[in-house]
Amino acid sequence: MEKKRVYTFGNGEAEGRAEMKNLLGGKGANLAEMNLIGVPVPPGFTITTEVCNEYYEKGKEAVVALLKDDVEHALSGVERQMNATFGDAGNPLLVSVRSGARASMPGMMDTILNLGLNEDVVEGLTERTGNPRFVWDSYRRFVQMYGDVVLGMKPFEKNEADPFEVIIDRVKEAKGVRLDTELTVGDLQELTARFKEAVRKQTGRDFPDDVREQLWGAVCAVFDSWMNDRAILYRKMEGIPAEWGTAVNVQAMVFGNMGRTSATGVAFSRDAATGENRFVGEYLINAQGEDVVAGIRTPQQITKTGSERWAKLAGISEEKRRAEYPSMEEAMPEIYGQLDALQQKLENHYRDMQDMEFTVQEGRLWFLQTRSGKRTGAAMVKIAMDLLREGVIDEKTAVMRVEPNKLDELLHPVFDTAALRRAKVLTKGLAASPGAASGRIVFNADDASVRAAAGERVIMVRVETSPEDLAGMAAAEGILTARGGMTSHAAVVARGMGKCCVSGAGELVVDYAAGCLRAGGVTLQEGDFISLNGSTGEVYLGAVATKEAEPDADFSELMALCDKYTKLLVRTNADTPHDAEKAREFGAVGIGLCRTEHMFFEGEKIRAMREMILAETVEGRRRALEKILPYQQEDFKGIFRVMAGCPVTVRLLDPPLHEFVPHHEKEQRELAEIMGVTYDCIRERVESLHEANPMLGHRGCRLGNTCPEITEMQTRAILGAALDLKAEGVETLPEIMVPLTGISHEFAAQEDVIRRTAAELFDERGDRVAFKVGTMIEIPRAALTADRIAGKAEFFSFGTNDLTQMTFGYSRDDIASFLPAYLDMKILPDDPFRVLDRNGVGQLVRMATEKGRSVRPDLKCGICGEHGGEPSSVKFCHTVGLDYVSCSPYRVPVARLAAAQAAIEG
Amino acid sequence: MEKKRVYTFGNGEAEGRAEMKNLLGGKGANLAEMNLIGVPVPPGFTITTEVCNEYYEKGKEAVVALLKDDVEHALSGVERQMNATFGDAGNPLLVSVRSGARASMPGMMDTILNLGLNEDVVEGLTERTGNPRFVWDSYRRFVQMYGDVVLGMKPFEKNEADPFEVIIDRVKEAKGVRLDTELTVGDLQELTARFKEAVRKQTGRDFPDDVREQLWGAVCAVFDSWMNDRAILYRKMEGIPAEWGTAVNVQAMVFGNMGRTSATGVAFSRDAATGENRFVGEYLINAQGEDVVAGIRTPQQITKTGSERWAKLAGISEEKRRAEYPSMEEAMPEIYGQLDALQQKLENHYRDMQDMEFTVQEGRLWFLQTRSGKRTGAAMVKIAMDLLREGVIDEKTAVMRVEPNKLDELLHPVFDTAALRRAKVLTKGLAASPGAASGRIVFNADDASVRAAAGERVIMVRVETSPEDLAGMAAAEGILTARGGMTSHAAVVARGMGKCCVSGAGELVVDYAAGCLRAGGVTLQEGDFISLNGSTGEVYLGAVATKEAEPDADFSELMALCDKYTKLLVRTNADTPHDAEKAREFGAVGIGLCRTEHMFFEGEKIRAMREMILAETVEGRRRALEKILPYQQEDFKGIFRVMAGCPVTVRLLDPPLHEFVPHHEKEQRELAEIMGVTYDCIRERVESLHEANPMLGHRGCRLGNTCPEITEMQTRAILGAALDLKAEGVETLPEIMVPLTGISHEFAAQEDVIRRTAAELFDERGDRVAFKVGTMIEIPRAALTADRIAGKAEFFSFGTNDLTQMTFGYSRDDIASFLPAYLDMKILPDDPFRVLDRNGVGQLVRMATEKGRSVRPDLKCGICGEHGGEPSSVKFCHTVGLDYVSCSPYRVPVARLAAAQAAIEG
Repeated sequence: MEKKRVYTFGNGEAEGRAEMKNLLGGKGANLAEMNLIGVPVPPGFTITTEVCNEYYEKGKEAVVALLKDDVEHALSGVERQMNATFGDAGNPLLVSVRSGARASMPGMMDTILNLGLNEDVVEGLTERTGNPRFVWDSYRRFVQMYGDVVLGMKPFEKNEADPFEVIIDRVKEAKGVRLDTELTVGDLQELTARFKEAVRKQTGRDFPDDVREQLWGAVCAVFDSWMNDRAILYRKMEGIPAEWGTAVNVQAMVFGNMGRTSATGVAFSRDAATGENRFVGEYLINAQGEDVVAGIRTPQQITKTGSERWAKLAGISEEKRRAEYPSMEEAMPEIYGQLDALQQKLENHYRDMQDMEFTVQEGRLWFLQTRSGKRTGAAMVKIAMDLLREGVIDEKTAVMRVEPNKLDELLHPVFDTAALRRAKVLTKGLAASPGAASGRIVFNADDASVRAAAGERVIMVRVETSPEDLAGMAAAEGILTARGGMTSHAAVVARGMGKCCVSGAGELVVDYAAGCLRAGGVTLQEGDFISLNGSTGEVYLGAVATKEAEPDADFSELMALCDKYTKLLVRTNADTPHDAEKAREFGAVGIGLCRTEHMFFEGEKIRAMREMILAETVEGRRRALEKILPYQQEDFKGIFRVMAGCPVTVRLLDPPLHEFVPHHEKEQRELAEIMGVTYDCIRERVESLHEANPMLGHRGCRLGNTCPEITEMQTRAILGAALDLKAEGVETLPEIMVPLTGISHEFAAQEDVIRRTAAELFDERGDRVAFKVGTMIEIPRAALTADRIAGKAEFFSFGTNDLTQMTFGYSRDDIASFLPAYLDMKILPDDPFRVLDRNGVGQLVRMATEKGRSVRPDLKCGICGEHGGEPSSVKFCHTVGLDYVSCSPYRVPVARLAAAQAAIEG
Repeated sequence: MEKKRVYTFGNGEAEGRAEMKNLLGGKGANLAEMNLIGVPVPPGFTITTEVCNEYYEKGKEAVVALLKDDVEHALSGVERQMNATFGDAGNPLLVSVRSGARASMPGMMDTILNLGLNEDVVEGLTERTGNPRFVWDSYRRFVQMYGDVVLGMKPFEKNEADPFEVIIDRVKEAKGVRLDTELTVGDLQELTARFKEAVRKQTGRDFPDDVREQLWGAVCAVFDSWMNDRAILYRKMEGIPAEWGTAVNVQAMVFGNMGRTSATGVAFSRDAATGENRFVGEYLINAQGEDVVAGIRTPQQITKTGSERWAKLAGISEEKRRAEYPSMEEAMPEIYGQLDALQQKLENHYRDMQDMEFTVQEGRLWFLQTRSGKRTGAAMVKIAMDLLREGVIDEKTAVMRVEPNKLDELLHPVFDTAALRRAKVLTKGLAASPGAASGRIVFNADDASVRAAAGERVIMVRVETSPEDLAGMAAAEGILTARGGMTSHAAVVARGMGKCCVSGAGELVVDYAAGCLRAGGVTLQEGDFISLNGSTGEVYLGAVATKEAEPDADFSELMALCDKYTKLLVRTNADTPHDAEKAREFGAVGIGLCRTEHMFFEGEKIRAMREMILAETVEGRRRALEKILPYQQEDFKGIFRVMAGCPVTVRLLDPPLHEFVPHHEKEQRELAEIMGVTYDCIRERVESLHEANPMLGHRGCRLGNTCPEITEMQTRAILGAALDLKAEGVETLPEIMVPLTGISHEFAAQEDVIRRTAAELFDERGDRVAFKVGTMIEIPRAALTADRIAGKAEFFSFGTNDLTQMTFGYSRDDIASFLPAYLDMKILPDDPFRVLDRNGVGQLVRMATEKGRSVRPDLKCGICGEHGGEPSSVKFCHTVGLDYVSCSPYRVPVARLAAAQAAIEG
């Protein structure tokens, strides 16, 4: 049997169906399917993807010959259904020619609309529609599109102007008009003539008037576009084989601007903003699709209730509404009835909220497109849970329906949509910590605290932040920095606090001395208002109104569903009882990373800490540490109490010591006075702590090993707190974590100090608590030698921030100089500090987990880097078989959802 | 048959032999062997290593019972041969009891000398020797040693004093003496009595007078010491199994201080300083071994010619010499004859220069020890080549006989030995680049150049060096820095220049402002003399005389032998024609790393470079790069010409750009004037280049990818130079190397720029040259994804300096704060920047080589980090199957030797 190359569809019948995506492409299969379920779509036919391969094997002529009969046959079917004839001046059929591959390749290949027009057809159509402007505009667009796509009328060089655009500019200049819409019918006729002249000049041939020549030219152009540079690059990046080929869809054009019985519109089967189950949409009578969205005419509501609500908001009287802006339900009741029935049918068929485009041509309804509609985070959750309750989808599907990242919207304030529309963007940075915030500009922590205490909302603006800024960051509504990436200090701390942050706004100039900032040609002073969108990275001038988001019952039900399917537990990174509490509310089942250094920055503590650091002897350090011990112990008690019954992984002191000492003369002099030593002594000691590359310096367990007394103090504080709570009847599960291990002996030495100190403490107290000792895996060498380390370590926690830094050799504070270029050049698919790099860093995570468990099969493995809250990274952690991920409190729901999805997918 | 537990030796007979090392331990087997070849050693017996295991299985009593008869039997044999009786007051036999395991474990286990003494024996012996001081001193030493080792008379706490030392101090105080030698016989008697009293007090038992009890106590103590903490730790680190056990050697004591027919001495079968084949050594009549080395009496020469030479140097007349310092050859001609014959026998037997200890007791010669003698580098080469020529050893053995690191001494100046003896050590740093140098202190590059131009020898002293110091470093005799490790800028550059360098002298305070340095309590001004020993890290006060080393014919022959056996090629790291020439002289077969950045620091070049960096636009950069191009091309021509016919791997620009810009206001203002821009403009641009962690910042191919015009310029310079030389008839083999690749696309993008630029250049010039494009593997991710990278890269060069930094997470500039502690604590066996870390970094090197070759079987792999010149690392490279190592010119011979040894070892 001869191979079938052309599949027709139309009038409720189709030769293809949804499952034939490989042969008909996504679009072709979908058009067939819609026909089969009784949705009226303009008739047409699909040339299969196999023909694309034949095209490249046998060449153009051979393939056209093979197709000719089938295409003619299919075309006459379309003519019959549309009651119009291709190329007929009196009653012409126009068609679109579109590509459609097996996998979606948006914008990669070419499309031609309005095919079938020539001077004769234009004349006939003008007569038929009485709308010469529409017809001539369609014609000049067709000539331009066809010239570009099929005849290769492209600019010669990348930076040269498009030859047609040059002509348009010249004509507009000659006519003295600025907008395309100001062009008259005569102008459009002149443009078209000039376009054709340009084609003749450049290609040496006339623009084809023969509509069949047009059709074959377009079909072949679509096949050709399968091998254009963009498409090849796209396939390479997405791993799509060239042999898949593209199908070609030829479909009748329909027009909503054929008079008062024609219309066009867009509709959603449910409310995309709130998720409410009501049919919403907008339409315009006697209009083209683009008119609805272009904002030239005011679109009308589809449903009567929608229309009434709209009028009320817009302050329009019921009389005026009914007269000037009637709903489709009122103006075209019969068509509305069809539309409503069909939208329900489509939603039921696709089992999801649909976003539909339709056109009414002379009283006949056509669907042009349907797809799952984009929606807000809140709508996403509500629709999924509603569909589940309605029995349309099952639990797993409901879980899969929510994009994890969209959950953020439910947990953070958002800008008021209307207010946002009027706001002016000042500059843009990285979307470092989601949410919306506005307030007065302050440039340092003290000012932030003072103004906030006085009841003002402030935004803290810094070149970059450091631990000294913590109090100010806590007092501020949001944080804006000029430098630093997604895992800069500002970003990490802000996410931990659930506070909005835009980091690394490269164009922003912060002038501390002058107390002002400059960006986008504007200079703002301290006290001026700005607003931040931490979900997009945008910074707005002035105060943009925000509204609080409140997770609701649907959210809780979704989370409960997640827990039913997940395998990966979700813990949190939290350093304070407040964060820990928030995280427990969000469902965290433990703390995966409790950093202790943040605890050292308040009053007495920072002073004792500095004494410790600046001490010249072990005894001096011990004395200072003894002062810190009771504070630390209290801090841990607070956290342990909140996390009663849950494991809490406490990381021993990690950052380089110079982060704790003052670097300015004034503060150094003050410290010298307090400590009773000379200023020079302090200055020299501080200078001696300076490091060329602090990220690779004396920190982590390198500190604990050179100053074991610090580890001893911290062990006493952690286990002392646990013993105190045991006495109160509170259960604790402390896990002591050694940071920055790179060598098995390095861990063993620290483990020894910890176990020895614990034994001493238990002896002294006459009581004991169970605890674990494990390590961060954040140095490549630790991953490479994980089998040796697991000999002693009871758990691994992957610190993927540092692991990414070391594996790539990137300093997260310095990547702004090349990362944007790398993302642009597609050298990197994503910021590796945001999305875990599977090939490199992920390989180490997998290797370390396997090596570790080869020695200790019950080794508990988790991740506590920023990736622990990024959905695709969480899914990777699931596939590697980690036991848990740990992320900042506000990312806990995101991680729970991603973890559940990973379990369902896998 | 009953298992044999005790093996006797003595009088030219032995039950064991050299091959029985596993059973008798190294020492026991050697003592047996010496007997068998006719070397007189004091008789004795060895208790086997198997008994050690029985000891731990069955316990002390059982083992003593098992051994009793055999030991008694062996002991009577010894008594017979020594004509003395164990425990007999009239003619006592004294013995030593020593451990001796299969593998050498120096100092790990215990030894007891002079066993067999008690009050009666002391009395008898005093009578026999007429030397009560010697006898009582021996007795108090025995009591002390036995008390310590067998009876556990150790300090209670680590930091407490030894109980016997406390007694000695008290007695000395009471007697008002400072030295042990000032104690009288009476004092020694009192000491002994007090020692015994202390034993009684602490152990509750009397010190044993029964010599058999003493013997069994000592034997068991040796077995016990197999399981002491030090020994367990040592075995763990060296991978020695506990089951190997230790043997116990019991051997008769002999004494060289029994009158005028007794003597003691040390001798070498060849000259250990020069390697000359002459018998040398020193002896003393009527003395103990320690007297020869203690410097209390002047030792005499063994041979007559040696004695005459010594007298001449010491300015002693022939009469006085013969009378007061006669040679052994003259004073004891018969014994001398035996000694000379035996030393030759031992050298022939062990086929190496021997270092021997002997004692003559009452006219009878005993050898106490023989071992391969330590020797200077020059002697090592000469002896190996002489022995080869003499037919004593074969070629492979000759190659194996030379320690690669010792070759350094042949290539660098060394201090005059006599002058060194008088020199005062000022401070100590890292032995960063070998050799000896002295000169006047200068603190900056300009002063160094000016003074050197005026003919002065200068030592450049810096806190740390930067590329701006290059000219000064080149002008100086040596470099001393206060900060920085073995791979700091100063260390790497100095090694490249073959210039002496001591780096990271932590105690050194450099005060640029005051123009002085402080160390060891001394302040020195600019212009004062200091001297550096780059082979030991010592810094001396004043000018210590040095002498040049000249590699000779033996050296050349050795190198030729190496090439005969080696599999691994040796290239060099060289950035200048001068270095390249030096390296070729030393036998380098190519350049493995030619850094281009050092070329940018002279006159016009640095100015154009700065213009390029500070340019705001691509065009501005291109203009500046066009100025640099001709200079670069000339630089490459110079190097290619020297390396005609050899491959030259050129690394594209690698360091962060801020290394090239001025950081001080004065220079910035000058630059602003030259560039015709404002000072603020320069200052801001320089500030914007600042990075928190420059090692992990915008450098390497991240520069080449964000500014491809730099790569274009460098490609043009490299290939332009090659084309110019082709026109001159000089063959070039350029290999263009992309630095710091971490992502395969990153390399691909640079490769594309290089190949495109090459095609353009070849078109323009109408000629072409062959070239390769490859990459550094110095980022962990590059090693992990080496299979992807090898798809495009034609060669890999492991940059193990950076790879070590990233894999460990160490900044080589900042490790001084914890590395010494880590080496002390045995957390690290070696500085990983000196010796390649096999478990971590080595794992990545192996992985990358395997992954790379899985995709491209002929992938050329080499190493160009500092490890390329470190012998054990070179051997590792051989086992991994690399094609070559590349090291600084002066390390080329070292690497060639290490490579040959690796090949011979198999």
